[in-house]
Amino acid sequence: MTSDLASLTSQNRRKLLDVWPVLRDEVLADFAAKGMPQAAVEWYARNLEYNTLGGKLLRGLAVLDSLTILKGRSLTDAESFKASVLGWCVELLQAFELVADDIMDQSLTRRGHPCWYKVEDVGLIAVNDACIIEGTIFMLLKKHFRTEVVYVDLVELFHEMINRTGMGQLIDHITENQTDLTKLSLERYRLIAVNKSAYYSIYLPIALAMHMHGINIADKAYEVTQEISFALGEYAQIQDDFFDYAGSQEHTGNIGTDIINKCSWCIITASALASPEQRKELEQTYCQNDNESQRRMRQVFEQVGLREQYEAYEEEAHRRIMDMTRQVPHGESASTPMLNGALFLEFLDKLYKRSK
Amino acid sequence: MTSDLASLTSQNRRKLLDVWPVLRDEVLADFAAKGMPQAAVEWYARNLEYNTLGGKLLRGLAVLDSLTILKGRSLTDAESFKASVLGWCVELLQAFELVADDIMDQSLTRRGHPCWYKVEDVGLIAVNDACIIEGTIFMLLKKHFRTEVVYVDLVELFHEMINRTGMGQLIDHITENQTDLTKLSLERYRLIAVNKSAYYSIYLPIALAMHMHGINIADKAYEVTQEISFALGEYAQIQDDFFDYAGSQEHTGNIGTDIINKCSWCIITASALASPEQRKELEQTYCQNDNESQRRMRQVFEQVGLREQYEAYEEEAHRRIMDMTRQVPHGESASTPMLNGALFLEFLDKLYKRSK
Repeated sequence: MTSDLASLTSQNRRKLLDVWPVLRDEVLADFAAKGMPQAAVEWYARNLEYNTLGGKLLRGLAVLDSLTILKGRSLTDAESFKASVLGWCVELLQAFELVADDIMDQSLTRRGHPCWYKVEDVGLIAVNDACIIEGTIFMLLKKHFRTEVVYVDLVELFHEMINRTGMGQLIDHITENQTDLTKLSLERYRLIAVNKSAYYSIYLPIALAMHMHGINIADKAYEVTQEISFALGEYAQIQDDFFDYAGSQEHTGNIGTDIINKCSWCIITASALASPEQRKELEQTYCQNDNESQRRMRQVFEQVGLREQYEAYEEEAHRRIMDMTRQVPHGESASTPMLNGALFLEFLDKLYKRSK
Repeated sequence: MTSDLASLTSQNRRKLLDVWPVLRDEVLADFAAKGMPQAAVEWYARNLEYNTLGGKLLRGLAVLDSLTILKGRSLTDAESFKASVLGWCVELLQAFELVADDIMDQSLTRRGHPCWYKVEDVGLIAVNDACIIEGTIFMLLKKHFRTEVVYVDLVELFHEMINRTGMGQLIDHITENQTDLTKLSLERYRLIAVNKSAYYSIYLPIALAMHMHGINIADKAYEVTQEISFALGEYAQIQDDFFDYAGSQEHTGNIGTDIINKCSWCIITASALASPEQRKELEQTYCQNDNESQRRMRQVFEQVGLREQYEAYEEEAHRRIMDMTRQVPHGESASTPMLNGALFLEFLDKLYKRSK
């Protein structure tokens, strides 16, 4: 980020955080007003706080930062409040997805704590809690955007993101446990990454800021934004896959289990680089849920130089995305009004050389 | 139902069923157009068909029947198509809820088949499948109602129903395993029944028909409709609870487990009627998940005359709801334009004296 942008966006995290208690109290009051008993209101509060807070808030913050970049100035109080509502809606979407994913993956920890469904008195009611978090998004949109012209576009955008994420999850699932390694392609990998995370993690926050900035939904700017978001999303997913393999639990907050049977960048890349013997070793150990198989897989990953491959990928991705952002037509042209390459550099900066 | 109404609504089931393949093919084509691989499209198709079909379609049909009653004539092709879209949206909502509920309750069978998450190659991805079914509702609303003035009201109505159902589920959950029988009240019971099922099962189909008929969302008619829907919903829930206790698996298609630890009408009523000794017996056996405890509970249920109590309740509820429908101001009055008591009699007829 340039120092100009950095000074403009430096207050955004604080502004976002300040809005959380306002929104939380609003939805809790709404719940109580609908006749819910005190114990249910308390459960809802605990569900919201446990699952929405504690993350890095990158997605929520990106709404405010993107709007700041589009405006080219600090946000007014009214703008930053509205952008924060949308930012929290993105964080709620993330919370909904994580609670549901952890149940489906039978994960144990999330952000260094037990997954919600693993909390002692919770269990499978977490499925309902995930749906309640999802519903909270639409309550907030209704409350804060009902009278604005963009309201329907915002609601539909969130629906589309939820559907995309569900599709990504489904393709991921049917690609899991695919013991025929020739079926694991980078093409399939991209399809999963784009749908499962690029849409809601990268495209969504920027698109929300674009809506707030008045860019018409039919504008080509949204297509350009999708294209770069997908490249960023693939990059972020490859990083996640690599850290799931190479990172330690203390570092990432999670116990990595993806290498066992997921369509991960690691297995695709190692498989492409492997000698016939190494490939046979991968075929024998991939999708085998035991420690010895994982040790042997990891050995092949090291032998084929997965770490170096990751470093090379990272440099290439960074260069490629930089090129894409330089080609974004910015300013008030007819085809892509008001778009700005800096929108994407924000994300790229946060991803580049990260280690968790 | 009067014979006049019966002849007007007699074609509605066929019309509703004819629309299903149209909508299914539409959403599958949309899925494919978004780049989903064939295997994912096939999974989506199987998810939709397995979970949406096979029920009694009472809720979906109620949209068409309600609109027919409001119009006082057979529906035109265009009207019945649109009402069928909304009808299937209600059935999809029901499918979404059932798939999720069965996971949470760890149920085994549904409609005489294994629950979706219990199907061999499915498992916990069913959580995602439930969300995809939910998303299908909003895809259909967008496709078929986007340009109509009621579109936003319809979307918000479905959101509200989803939230209500989630709230009902949550209250149900926190009331489960409540070993202090004095905490189980009919008031709490009603709160669960209204939120968990009356809203989406009874109010929703009628309200959708009212929207299609052009009744403004601010009209008092919606309040009147809610009031009677809640009475009907409580009645239907008490029936379900009784059948879960007294019905056989062959008859209801489900293996009843609700009496073990749910806030069921049976335990509340038995507890209110019990002698001090019988009450002690209930306290010792309720929430004990073993066959002997269930046998002892059932014995007390029989001793206190739960079956007779149910019959008396049914007569009283029928009479009370008949009275409510007679007081519905119908015709084109200012306060409740175009409402018609027959809307509710449709439901009452289907509930009264049913045995599963």
